[in-house]
Amino acid sequence: MPATHTDKAFEQDLRDLRERLLAMGAKVEALIAGSVRALTERDSTLAEKVIQSDKDVNRLEVEIDDLCRRILALRQPAASDLRLITTALKIVTDLERIGDLAVNIAERAHDLNQVPPLAPYVDTPKLAELAQQQVKKALDAFVSDDVAKAEEVLKGDDLLDALFLKIFNELLAYMMEDSKNIRRATALMFIAKHLERIGDHALNVAEMVVYMVRGKDIRHPLSRNLTME
Amino acid sequence: MPATHTDKAFEQDLRDLRERLLAMGAKVEALIAGSVRALTERDSTLAEKVIQSDKDVNRLEVEIDDLCRRILALRQPAASDLRLITTALKIVTDLERIGDLAVNIAERAHDLNQVPPLAPYVDTPKLAELAQQQVKKALDAFVSDDVAKAEEVLKGDDLLDALFLKIFNELLAYMMEDSKNIRRATALMFIAKHLERIGDHALNVAEMVVYMVRGKDIRHPLSRNLTME
Repeated sequence: MPATHTDKAFEQDLRDLRERLLAMGAKVEALIAGSVRALTERDSTLAEKVIQSDKDVNRLEVEIDDLCRRILALRQPAASDLRLITTALKIVTDLERIGDLAVNIAERAHDLNQVPPLAPYVDTPKLAELAQQQVKKALDAFVSDDVAKAEEVLKGDDLLDALFLKIFNELLAYMMEDSKNIRRATALMFIAKHLERIGDHALNVAEMVVYMVRGKDIRHPLSRNLTME
Repeated sequence: MPATHTDKAFEQDLRDLRERLLAMGAKVEALIAGSVRALTERDSTLAEKVIQSDKDVNRLEVEIDDLCRRILALRQPAASDLRLITTALKIVTDLERIGDLAVNIAERAHDLNQVPPLAPYVDTPKLAELAQQQVKKALDAFVSDDVAKAEEVLKGDDLLDALFLKIFNELLAYMMEDSKNIRRATALMFIAKHLERIGDHALNVAEMVVYMVRGKDIRHPLSRNLTME
């Protein structure tokens, strides 16, 4: 990003874009936290609230997409500014999908709250917190062109994957122990998988930030790590 | 899209973009088919091949992204052309993620091929075929600005979801029947889930096509249907 733009309106547009992306990120983080709290606190009203709030995320997506198109049409950015806008267009899709995943978690939490809990949910909120931190850090890296922070996200993904695997194996053990656990354990497995996928979206964002800043595409050596389980 | 562009080079760019997206789509479809064939025919060499070919999809993504940025920088498109390019930037990400999902399926197929099969895989290849058709149709709708075809994709998603649910419930039953089935059934459940997610990506593409052509965003009433299970 050049240090100064002669065009004040353009500067304002870019600031606006960054602010809106951060606002959307904050909203999405709240949905992740809410969806998992709905599970751990057996709070179906909260689950319902998460499901309802997703429309705010969707509205933000449409608005930011429109803003990006408006900037492209009016300001005809080049070089690093162009890369910023085209990256924003992609990031907004990742954020919206994260919102969808939080809704899926809330829906499963809602179902699980109808039956006795399988076990104390110790690692699931930990996984949610990690995923949420990764999303926050990736977005911060984007708005501040901070490659070092993006690289932290890339490194942080292993921790998330390891915790997912731990939860997955514990749930398998519950299933093997008693067939009455199978249905609930399966639901919890999908919740954990959704959280791990939220982490993957953060990883995608971080990879795009590195590309945006360095102009070098690192997406694909890393996407090899995105396999499940 | 206006019927004629005075700028021949621009026309050529757009043709190039459409062709490359179709080529990437064909590649991705082949990966879906290959990954499921690796499972049903217990062909781990094929699984390995799918895992290796993903890098071609990744290369195509980088190339198409670059092409989109080049068109934006050089041609400064407006209105419907701008919408076409910004949509292409998003679609290419969906295609790349589909490639990742096919790789995940191939990896699981590889593992499952080391142990005796749980049951004949009747519905899984059917689900894969449906998912593949949805991807193909959504991309065709994109390159030909065909809203009717995009709407077919939107309608087709219910079939996919229903088949996923059927497979999911059958696998649950296998798990309940004998705990020795649990590990394999879980792997098959994730494979089915990946195929259903491939269908969701096709749905996303179709929604974007409707928006691109009509200029009206229909993404979000429909994204409500994207919940799992």
